[in-house]
Parts: sequence; C-alpha cells; structure tokens
Amino acid sequence: MSDLSRLCIHTATTKPWSVEIAIEQYARAGVAGITVWRDALSDRDPAAVGRRIRDAGLEAVSLCRGGFFAAVERETRRRAVEENLRAVEEAAALGAPVVVLVCGADSGQALETSRRQIVEGIGAISARAREAGVRLAVEPLHPMYADEKSAISTMQSANDICDEISAQNVGVAVDVYHIWWDPNAPAEIRRCGAAGRLFAFHVCDWRVPTGDLLLDRALMGEGCIDVPRFRRIVEESGFEGYHEVEIFSTRYWSMDQSNYLDQIIEAYRRQV
Amino acid sequence: MSDLSRLCIHTATTKPWSVEIAIEQYARAGVAGITVWRDALSDRDPAAVGRRIRDAGLEAVSLCRGGFFAAVERETRRRAVEENLRAVEEAAALGAPVVVLVCGADSGQALETSRRQIVEGIGAISARAREAGVRLAVEPLHPMYADEKSAISTMQSANDICDEISAQNVGVAVDVYHIWWDPNAPAEIRRCGAAGRLFAFHVCDWRVPTGDLLLDRALMGEGCIDVPRFRRIVEESGFEGYHEVEIFSTRYWSMDQSNYLDQIIEAYRRQV
Repeated sequence: MSDLSRLCIHTATTKPWSVEIAIEQYARAGVAGITVWRDALSDRDPAAVGRRIRDAGLEAVSLCRGGFFAAVERETRRRAVEENLRAVEEAAALGAPVVVLVCGADSGQALETSRRQIVEGIGAISARAREAGVRLAVEPLHPMYADEKSAISTMQSANDICDEISAQNVGVAVDVYHIWWDPNAPAEIRRCGAAGRLFAFHVCDWRVPTGDLLLDRALMGEGCIDVPRFRRIVEESGFEGYHEVEIFSTRYWSMDQSNYLDQIIEAYRRQV
Repeated sequence: MSDLSRLCIHTATTKPWSVEIAIEQYARAGVAGITVWRDALSDRDPAAVGRRIRDAGLEAVSLCRGGFFAAVERETRRRAVEENLRAVEEAAALGAPVVVLVCGADSGQALETSRRQIVEGIGAISARAREAGVRLAVEPLHPMYADEKSAISTMQSANDICDEISAQNVGVAVDVYHIWWDPNAPAEIRRCGAAGRLFAFHVCDWRVPTGDLLLDRALMGEGCIDVPRFRRIVEESGFEGYHEVEIFSTRYWSMDQSNYLDQIIEAYRRQV
C-alpha cells in the first residue's frame, strides 16, 4: 500500500476536467502533485495557474509536453525550437521544474536523421532552460510511435542522446508503458540513475488485448506491466520524485471523472 | 528494380485465396517462392500440396507458423510442444526447409519467464527438426505484441535466445515490420549473419498513420520503412534466400486479389 504523498496525476489523465477542476479535485482527494498539459493551460496565465496549484496544497511536477524537434523542413524545426522555448517559459512561470519532451520523428526521413535533429533541437533550448531553472526530460516512447512521435524508442536511446547532449539539466522521463517489454530497460534505468538523469517516472498499464495504439491505456494492475518492479528499479537507481499517473483512455474519459479519480487512487495504493 | 527470382509471397498475404489458387496465381505471375501458412493447409495432405507447389515451378520457402511456447499452465506448454512437432512434420512433408516461430508470451507471467519457456520449448523440438531436415526460425515481433504473441521483441533478444539454445538448425527470421525502429537492429543482423543464423527475410511496410495493431500493414514503399536498406544489411550479412512478402491487411484482403498481386509485384520490383 502506497500513501498518497508521492502520487501525481497528469491533467491529460482526467482530460474532461478543466485544470481548475482538476486542481480542486486532486487536492480534495489527497493527491500531492499535478503535471499540467499545455492544452489545459490554453489562454490562461501559467503563473496564476501555478499559484492556484500551490494554494491548493499541490506541487507542480512537470509541464507536458515539449519536443517534436524532428522534421524534414528546416522551418518546421525552427518553429519547434521557438515553441519549446515558450514551453520552458511556461514551466518556469507555472513553477514546474521539468518539461517532458516527446522528441518527435518525421516518417519522411531516416530515424537517424530525426535523432540528429533531436540532439540539435534540445541543444538549442537547454541553456535557456537552465537559466530558467527548468530541466528537460527526454521520454522514450514505445516503438509503435517511431513513425511520427518519437525516434527515441528505448531507454538506451534516451541515455545515448543525453550523453551526446551532455547538459546537466537534460535527462530522462521513464514511462512504464513505453519500456516494459525491453529486456535492456532495467540496466538502462540504472545507467540513467548513475548519471543523475532520472527526472520523472510515469505509470499506467498495458491492457491485454490493447484495442487502440493511442487511447487504450489501463489503470495500474489492470494490464500486464509489473509496475512495482519498475518503481523498485527507479528508486534503487536513486529516483526520489513523484509517481505520475498518465493514462490516455477514451473509456475512462467517458466515465464520471470523480469516480474515475477514486479508481486511480485505489489502483495507485495497491498496484504501485 | 528487382527481378522476381527471389520473390516469395506468404499465403496469408492473399488470404482470400485457397492455397491451390495462390500456387496457380503466384506461378502465373512469375513469383518464385511460396510460404505456406498452416491455416491454408487445413485438412489437406501437406505432401500433396508440396508436389503441387513444385509442379507449378515454385519453391516452398517456409511453413508459418509454429511457436507459442510460453504459457502459465504446464499442460498448455506441453501441448504447444506437440503442436510444434506436428508443424515440423508438416514442413518436412511439404518440402519447406524452415518453420517460422512466433514464440509466444503469456501476460499472466513475467517476460523473463516466457523467455525461459521459449528456450525450453524450442529445445524440446530442435533435435527432431534437425532429423527431419527442418530449420527453426525465431521471429522477433514488434514490441506492441509483447503481451500475448512474442516475448522476443528485438534482434538482440532473438540472437541471445539462439546463443542459449545453441543448435545449428535454430536461427532467426528478420521481418522489417518488427525491427525497423530499433537502432541496434543493423548490428544485431550482422551478429546473426556472422553466426550463420539468418534463416528468413520478410518484407512489407509500416503505414503512417497505422490504424490497427494487427491488420494494417502496407505494401513496400507505402510506409516509412527503408526496406532496401534492410535488404542490403541482411545480404551483406550473408543472407542469400528469398524476400518474403508478408502483409496482413483488411484493406488489401477486401480487394480483388489478382489486382493486388500485380501491386505486390510492382512494389517488390521498385521498393525492395
């Protein structure tokens, strides 16, 4: 049984709720942290949202998400860098110490090219992020997203990218959904921890069978991922941060979100 | 432009056709090889199907598919070994020198346990396969199938399993669809070739966006996989066998299969 002092929930998990309702409901339920998705901010002042988070007794854990640095067109890459600099400013204003990066891929070019552009893109924002007190967390995504979302599919690849960039504020977000299948993941998580680069830990579960590539994630304990094992590995590797529940699920988004929040908390207590 | 002397098609690619029609149509179109799926054999005498293949001037390339060795229940594993021994006999009768193995996974247990059971299962059939002149090709499957279909998700994992089993007739089937995203794949294909274990090469393409986890494979050239690059890598690694077109696609299965066969051949000539 986990207590709730390290439970964080992503606004995208309870997507039907506005960020204001999410803050209120998470706080009332005893959740400790919130990761804010940029679409939940829309026209709001991030500093005001940050104050509301702290006033509710919550901590802003991360801003999701920057990235998408890879593109065939140079102009698209330039705009991505600008957009990521805006995300860094938003995170700083919000008081979130981390921006999670879904690094991108462009199916019109080789993955190696996308990876080189990712290194360049992160390199173009890391100094400004450091000045702003913001860390950047490269999130390896499941290989089923290698066509359009992330040329970084494994912990090994994320570690290699971080080695290449070699900036103290550039590290990795570990999400069990993306890496559970990989026999190299435990060793690469340890490598990541040893380098001081374990910046975030996301949990959910892999539903069996999975009906949709994007929107059929499961609650912890419903699927086949041994979440407590990965929690143990990240914590043995030095991670002391939040356990962030990030679930995209049309079936859960169609539920009453208060009931769903109860289920999330129950699943977190028993299965993380 | 590739000529057709090394083009092989899987019966599952033109699934609406019976094996008899597939043989006739492939031969008429100048295709050189056929890989027979076990469901296409159903009640038929495999030796008779083998004669029909050779009489049509085709070569039987592989039998698809054995495997599914991993299971929580011991009795299920025992039955899987029996079923695989039947597959070996069928391949021998058919005159197909290779049985492709989709090794299995059981989401009710750790992947490591499934992998150990796979080693045991292959170990239980490899000697009989050798006597029958049949090679066994472990096919690593895309990580999106790690829940129920294959605990072997990468070339590295397939090579490791083969090292562990260490039988001359146990090797690997490389399918671009499953491994294209993996930065380690080229080096692991070379490792596989150096060990004399490259037994099969399957091609198709990854559609962008992919609408279904199973049945939305694309023709070569339609998606984002650099198929000629992988052909070059396997051939530089010593592979001299067929290029096998294996496409599961509800959209292509709903087409007139003769027109589809023309498209396959066109895509093969230009994109492999």
